[in-house]
Amino acid sequence: MTDTFPAPPAISSEIGYSTHDAIFVRGNNLATDLMGHLDFGSMFYLLVTGRRPDAAQAEMFNACLVALADHGLTPSAIAARLTLLAAPDAVQGAIAAGILGAGPKFLGVFEDAGRMLHTASPTTLQSDAEFEKSAGEIVADYRSAGRLLPGLGHPIHKDGDPRTSRLYELAKANGTYGPYMKLLEVVREAAEQATGRALPINAAGACGAVLCDIGLPVDVLRGVAVVSRAAGLVGHVAEEQQNPIAEAVWFGTEHQADSSRAPHSD
Amino acid sequence: MTDTFPAPPAISSEIGYSTHDAIFVRGNNLATDLMGHLDFGSMFYLLVTGRRPDAAQAEMFNACLVALADHGLTPSAIAARLTLLAAPDAVQGAIAAGILGAGPKFLGVFEDAGRMLHTASPTTLQSDAEFEKSAGEIVADYRSAGRLLPGLGHPIHKDGDPRTSRLYELAKANGTYGPYMKLLEVVREAAEQATGRALPINAAGACGAVLCDIGLPVDVLRGVAVVSRAAGLVGHVAEEQQNPIAEAVWFGTEHQADSSRAPHSD
Amino acid sequence: MTDTFPAPPAISSEIGYSTHDAIFVRGNNLATDLMGHLDFGSMFYLLVTGRRPDAAQAEMFNACLVALADHGLTPSAIAARLTLLAAPDAVQGAIAAGILGAGPKFLGVFEDAGRMLHTASPTTLQSDAEFEKSAGEIVADYRSAGRLLPGLGHPIHKDGDPRTSRLYELAKANGTYGPYMKLLEVVREAAEQATGRALPINAAGACGAVLCDIGLPVDVLRGVAVVSRAAGLVGHVAEEQQNPIAEAVWFGTEHQADSSRAPHSD
Amino acid sequence: MTDTFPAPPAISSEIGYSTHDAIFVRGNNLATDLMGHLDFGSMFYLLVTGRRPDAAQAEMFNACLVALADHGLTPSAIAARLTLLAAPDAVQGAIAAGILGAGPKFLGVFEDAGRMLHTASPTTLQSDAEFEKSAGEIVADYRSAGRLLPGLGHPIHKDGDPRTSRLYELAKANGTYGPYMKLLEVVREAAEQATGRALPINAAGACGAVLCDIGLPVDVLRGVAVVSRAAGLVGHVAEEQQNPIAEAVWFGTEHQADSSRAPHSD
Repeated sequence: MTDTFPAPPAISSEIGYSTHDAIFVRGNNLATDLMGHLDFGSMFYLLVTGRRPDAAQAEMFNACLVALADHGLTPSAIAARLTLLAAPDAVQGAIAAGILGAGPKFLGVFEDAGRMLHTASPTTLQSDAEFEKSAGEIVADYRSAGRLLPGLGHPIHKDGDPRTSRLYELAKANGTYGPYMKLLEVVREAAEQATGRALPINAAGACGAVLCDIGLPVDVLRGVAVVSRAAGLVGHVAEEQQNPIAEAVWFGTEHQADSSRAPHSD
Repeated sequence: MTDTFPAPPAISSEIGYSTHDAIFVRGNNLATDLMGHLDFGSMFYLLVTGRRPDAAQAEMFNACLVALADHGLTPSAIAARLTLLAAPDAVQGAIAAGILGAGPKFLGVFEDAGRMLHTASPTTLQSDAEFEKSAGEIVADYRSAGRLLPGLGHPIHKDGDPRTSRLYELAKANGTYGPYMKLLEVVREAAEQATGRALPINAAGACGAVLCDIGLPVDVLRGVAVVSRAAGLVGHVAEEQQNPIAEAVWFGTEHQADSSRAPHSD
Repeated sequence: MTDTFPAPPAISSEIGYSTHDAIFVRGNNLATDLMGHLDFGSMFYLLVTGRRPDAAQAEMFNACLVALADHGLTPSAIAARLTLLAAPDAVQGAIAAGILGAGPKFLGVFEDAGRMLHTASPTTLQSDAEFEKSAGEIVADYRSAGRLLPGLGHPIHKDGDPRTSRLYELAKANGTYGPYMKLLEVVREAAEQATGRALPINAAGACGAVLCDIGLPVDVLRGVAVVSRAAGLVGHVAEEQQNPIAEAVWFGTEHQADSSRAPHSD
Repeated sequence: MTDTFPAPPAISSEIGYSTHDAIFVRGNNLATDLMGHLDFGSMFYLLVTGRRPDAAQAEMFNACLVALADHGLTPSAIAARLTLLAAPDAVQGAIAAGILGAGPKFLGVFEDAGRMLHTASPTTLQSDAEFEKSAGEIVADYRSAGRLLPGLGHPIHKDGDPRTSRLYELAKANGTYGPYMKLLEVVREAAEQATGRALPINAAGACGAVLCDIGLPVDVLRGVAVVSRAAGLVGHVAEEQQNPIAEAVWFGTEHQADSSRAPHSD
């Protein structure tokens, strides 16, 4: 006799379901309460948290999604274009290939910065002294483990990432500036003091802090970055469809490789 | 000697690039001109078309992205949850697995509807008679080829998809109602007449027509649907992280399979 | 009330299942009948067809898998390496990104060639005259539709793909040479006559014909190519882990793009 | 002026390249030296390590690939089938979705077991006493960190995984039994003594040890598992094309979810 599997427990999902004449998403009537009432960024916030954002949260969430959507010919964008070259009829495959590059080295920084801040439970910190103590511990921990502090420093924008100052400006104006954004600033000061180097907060770090301050769970941050970048990837797909470059990238790579190969006699 | 690859031609991408102190996306300064000025849906429109949407276009684009973002426990959402079960640390993989299901049978309908309308060049049609002639030809062509008309009919919302009426209402109110949306209505009438059955316009069809009317290229429609659905998939990922059901789905599948297997003696 | 889903029908899969002390795959005891008795290529044949290959079929199936496994720095290999650069801890993502490039333009040719031959039902053709008639019709159909004949011609191996002659040699020696391989040769002759150009059978075409002759269903051919290429992609992953080039490819692409951008004043 | 990227360094890949009349893979002439001379498993070994396996290594490598290829309706197989349901024309997407589930919880165990053994540098251990000391340290480390020992225990095959005994039998017969396989046995004894529970070596653990003993680098183990499982996934794709069950799985999931939802009045 084969081993039998018992009847599985019932399952539930609160995200969405349909009736004969209506569709509900997170408890809202999609057609009458959401479409035309809410921008896509706010819908995304609702899908992930189960709550509609208030106006300030929506502004910050949208600003982060806008900030991370594209950054030119990144490895992820190149991978998407090469995949489209090979399989032009499966656009979903090109986008999937691109977002598979949303790992720890690139978009994941975003999540790492959020997690770093989260370990200090910033919402429980009261005084400036408590923030400084937590920041000092974070910096010491990372340095003793030989790890880079996520969210600080940038290879190109050495004098400061312009997206970071914009996010802080918006948050201070609309009242969402909170303990995560503050702690990140204090961590940066502690890190600069400890290393003697300029370590500006980069956009990934700032977005990580902003999203925590507006109530996103840390575990979902990478997913937020993925959707933002997916929009950028569709931009690359659209451009590739009209002005293709993937074949030239491929040939360029072969050329790079070929010129390093010693000629042989046969 | 190996075959040599010639130096490849220079390539160009107009989407994004960086200077020392600024980032440009589609010609706009990201930090000063886009972040805080534009919602994510409008940014997505800019990334894909190179143009900012006007207010009415932004409303319609956001409404479509909201409409398609989620539809409960679809095959795509289940695939994403099962992938997360197996690889919980690679959220990007779960989302990628989900969007690989954005093929012709589900989200692709969207694109198919746009392509069907596009073949009739609706922007060149002048009179009602011309619309009716084109619609009649489309219906005849699909029927003689034995193909279903994409964008018409719905297995559950038999009396009309509530998202469709909402999109038409919004478009008529904000002035984006155009030849694609009109042609789809006329195709629907022709199809109902030819078949004698009710064939309401479904949300995928309506969104395909809306997006063409607001200036999206047909080739990119599937990509738009993918990003919309990616937001829904992150909602499923977030729910799965807090209230997991994928293991129960897996056991449920094994149970379905097991109960059909005749017991044997060894 | 929500719409209810009826209890689904029982399902069955004949591929594999476990009992307390044994695992069965396609009806064979995995530990005692398969492991150590059969190479991985033959196991793959069993998984796909439900039958063990005979010795000649196993030789041809393995030869095709060997033939298609790698072809240097293809778009697919580059995409896999770039994805590994971004997400080095998710090797499965890098391989997935690479195989998403197994579309119609590259590995899909394989399947297209099989389908082209399949439409002529080569197993029913009796005489040389019948083969010539079918081949002539295929060539005429493709030419009148303006389509390239899949499996013929090669950008580099203009005098003949060395893998093709090897496959024909093996098949003639072991008795698997059959109507698909024969029809492909006759199609090639007809195509060369019609176009006046040399159109050697390429490896993808030859493999497509071989696999049909040894009993693989046409619908599964692309999947066979994907597994073969996946082995090559793991080779690229292993090399990238030891001697990384993806970052240089990325910078090379940026350099290609940058040198084409006119300098501007700000 | 934009920031400029310097000309990138030349790159090299030793896997494969072509000349006018030959293709080389890892230094071997593909058509004359590999096709027909070597099974696909051995080719895979060559691609990954750069060396051809000897007969005993080839037997063990093939046995591991055979052992891991399929395990019935796993989350990974279900995800592949659901993706095929949604996008039947993009078989590569279905396979990619399936292998994205090759994460730490399932196929990754394989790699984790290899890494666990690798930390003890088993090739340097001389006497039984040294093996026992290393094994004791491994067990103590994992237990003090609250981590499960990878490669030990099985939810179904509680009296021993039949694949494990087969792999040990083969390795002892052909002379590849080595320090990794031995250390795993000693770890198992130490773990059973420490916990008082039966902890048989499972197939993933045994394969991890076997592959290290035949010279595969630890970093590539997950990739090996992915290719093996990809063959199984093509088996599921082939079965799904002929005897589809994905729709029933989907409806079964909806049914599971639906029956848990309290009816409501509207």
